[in-house]
Amino acid sequence: MAVVNEITNRNVDFAKWYTDICRVAELVDYSSVKGSMIIKPYGYAIWENIQKNLDKMFKELGHVNVQMPMFIPESLLNIEKDHIEGFAPEVAWVTMGGNTPLEERYCVRPTSETLFCDHYKKIIKSYRDLPKLYNQWCTIVRWEKTTRPFLRSREILWQEGHTMHQTEEEARNETLTMWHVYEKFQKEYLALPVIIGKKTEKEKFAGAEETYTIEAMMQDGVALQNGTSHYFGQKFAKAFNITFLDQDNTLKTPYQTSWGVTTRMIGGLIMTHSDDNGLVLPPKIAPIQVMFIPIGKDEAVLTKIKEIQNKLSSNITTKIDLSDKSPGYKFAEAEVKGIPLRIDIGSRDLENNTVTFVRRDTLEKSIVSLENIEKTIEETLENIQSNLYNIAEKRRNSMLHSAANYEEFKQITETLPGFIKINWCGNIECEEKIKDDSGYKSRCILIDEKTDGVCAVCGKEGKHKIYFGKQY
Amino acid sequence: MAVVNEITNRNVDFAKWYTDICRVAELVDYSSVKGSMIIKPYGYAIWENIQKNLDKMFKELGHVNVQMPMFIPESLLNIEKDHIEGFAPEVAWVTMGGNTPLEERYCVRPTSETLFCDHYKKIIKSYRDLPKLYNQWCTIVRWEKTTRPFLRSREILWQEGHTMHQTEEEARNETLTMWHVYEKFQKEYLALPVIIGKKTEKEKFAGAEETYTIEAMMQDGVALQNGTSHYFGQKFAKAFNITFLDQDNTLKTPYQTSWGVTTRMIGGLIMTHSDDNGLVLPPKIAPIQVMFIPIGKDEAVLTKIKEIQNKLSSNITTKIDLSDKSPGYKFAEAEVKGIPLRIDIGSRDLENNTVTFVRRDTLEKSIVSLENIEKTIEETLENIQSNLYNIAEKRRNSMLHSAANYEEFKQITETLPGFIKINWCGNIECEEKIKDDSGYKSRCILIDEKTDGVCAVCGKEGKHKIYFGKQY
Repeated sequence: MAVVNEITNRNVDFAKWYTDICRVAELVDYSSVKGSMIIKPYGYAIWENIQKNLDKMFKELGHVNVQMPMFIPESLLNIEKDHIEGFAPEVAWVTMGGNTPLEERYCVRPTSETLFCDHYKKIIKSYRDLPKLYNQWCTIVRWEKTTRPFLRSREILWQEGHTMHQTEEEARNETLTMWHVYEKFQKEYLALPVIIGKKTEKEKFAGAEETYTIEAMMQDGVALQNGTSHYFGQKFAKAFNITFLDQDNTLKTPYQTSWGVTTRMIGGLIMTHSDDNGLVLPPKIAPIQVMFIPIGKDEAVLTKIKEIQNKLSSNITTKIDLSDKSPGYKFAEAEVKGIPLRIDIGSRDLENNTVTFVRRDTLEKSIVSLENIEKTIEETLENIQSNLYNIAEKRRNSMLHSAANYEEFKQITETLPGFIKINWCGNIECEEKIKDDSGYKSRCILIDEKTDGVCAVCGKEGKHKIYFGKQY
Repeated sequence: MAVVNEITNRNVDFAKWYTDICRVAELVDYSSVKGSMIIKPYGYAIWENIQKNLDKMFKELGHVNVQMPMFIPESLLNIEKDHIEGFAPEVAWVTMGGNTPLEERYCVRPTSETLFCDHYKKIIKSYRDLPKLYNQWCTIVRWEKTTRPFLRSREILWQEGHTMHQTEEEARNETLTMWHVYEKFQKEYLALPVIIGKKTEKEKFAGAEETYTIEAMMQDGVALQNGTSHYFGQKFAKAFNITFLDQDNTLKTPYQTSWGVTTRMIGGLIMTHSDDNGLVLPPKIAPIQVMFIPIGKDEAVLTKIKEIQNKLSSNITTKIDLSDKSPGYKFAEAEVKGIPLRIDIGSRDLENNTVTFVRRDTLEKSIVSLENIEKTIEETLENIQSNLYNIAEKRRNSMLHSAANYEEFKQITETLPGFIKINWCGNIECEEKIKDDSGYKSRCILIDEKTDGVCAVCGKEGKHKIYFGKQY
């Protein structure tokens, strides 16, 4: 089909293939605003599904949504030193309101730790006010120089959780809990076989004590940092002078976390599951899970489709393609848009009491009985979901390497895509040497894995198992 | 209760009463960002309910959500002359990205007609691409000098629908359809007895051909413009040079609409239904519809409450106040927060097979049998919803006046709060005379009502029935 021919082959040019998918599947468009993308209806519907499911998970854990201002006065952003150093070079500054220059310039939030702390200072007085489990769905702005749909753009849709706790233990638990919520969501809904671990001192969030990360690997072996959860300790709270009267009647400083994921996850979805024919979406996050394509004009066919729709569980989203396009065009469209299951029905199918299933994950065609078809549809969708995860995991595993020494490490970087696991001494010099030599950055320290040898770079005592990889 | 004593009496100072309610019910807080408010969890939960219900109504009519950039390059904003004149004095300008001055300054969107037109120009080529029924949930910025929670602030949460159509008729229908969606939503969900009509030439939206408005009246007789739907004709489309190939194979210009409502509706809710004891919320929009207050520590009471919760329809949101506060404090809290129905249950109630209902609208207490209590709860909530509407309508009607001549008009403005209906010649001079003399602005031209006399201002032929009133 014409529409498929517009997609560059992955092996020819992976970057071009990616932007082709974004365009042909009608996910995004470029705008006249440099570096900012337009999220089109089909792309936004994926984000709505992500929001709906994540928001439910957050609320089940007691989180509530709020809305903070989008602007941060410069003096407020300046309060925490590491934080301002990390963000000042990439914020957008508002300097005029109407025709009047502002007395103090405001940046458009690049993240909202400072705004939340400013508010928490006001509303946290007693241990009874804790914990505060706030979340915000909004957009943030970072003045990036090079941009790419979903992966890096000047304006980003995201959610940011900001919580305050009575004790260190509680805040540490929150950091880990939300990290695992992200892991669970990405594995179960997005079918991404993510690796989870801790960021090094060099790579952690500006102002955080510890950053826990979700690392996905794309089909080309390149990493996508796909969500982070930060433990702040009392750093911001002290800088903002936030205190509360504890049960023992003494003034204490609370402990803080923040955690966020962005539309970048949609980029991760695309680069993990899609193929040369177009987008491939896991059923649990697809805006349309089943596309019915009536063949011919037989009224009985439409009646049968509606009968099937009515019998299906309300969790399953379906659509009938009633446009005046040819069946061939409709097939191609369902394919490039990554609809998990296509069901073709014509008059002859009705006579045989069958329909045709076309799975997007395998592109397999099969003749399926109309008997108990609701159950067959549900099972097929579940099967597609787990199959996508398994394919992605198998591919990912084939690109996970280990290197015992620097010779091996360099050889892998020169010959194989993917992540490389090493024993590491924990010194930033070794981390920087790798980056300077190969462009590989540390992905994450593996929490549950012990070292079994010396640092692959310097040969000194190994302290951590850690992954390195190239990144988007 | 202490908490209630913090609320200024409405008759003493209505403006102070309003901000007291916003504070005591924990809806909003002030921030360090001048003119921008923080929407706290309870206030935001009301907005989430508004969003959920409106979004469903939009989607049922075929609308889809998208995300446009938050910035508008100055040259893009400048394309439609009337539009830029209307908005330029009140936008925030971004002039720096990081440490680099921008070549062209960007404003933070005050509304997005220009962004949508810029995109539509790219994606509308054929009649097959029409209609485009796009909507966006986002925040906008208008650099207001004086601000007030929900009513007027520098950053506003809203939705903006932007649609393009093949014919004038279709676009006019869309304008009216969405106007009536707003009317229905505000009447049925917010229990606001709104008046609907058309804005005068003077008061219509910058760049629109026609503006249809939803006008609510607050308890003090002052108007709140609570949503508008605009018909643009081809004005923007021509300015942006948007054309499509029609079925007859000729190039044509499409017809456009836009429509929006904001968090201002929450202000309207407060100033319509609330009282000197605190917030009053219609059940259909309340984040918590029923608050159970267990009296004493009897486990059987808690078991019974959970039994009732389980039997209730999942549409009804309930909460049990399990905090360690005193029952009296809990009662006061449910009251200031406007929970529609409070249900108190203690051991003695169980013995009598009864509970105590306290309705927030009437503050009435009643003993209710546990027999079929689910049904009683549902009916009571419905009753509260319609009672709030009826009270508001009765009050509103008592403040609707008519004036046959300017003498009468002036007398009413000096003695009675509310709206004044007159016959009007349609000339801006008469509209401006009223505004200069009394501060009353035209609210709306009544579409379905014929004139029955001469213009109350100039005595020339009457062309329209129109309402005037003071406004927030």
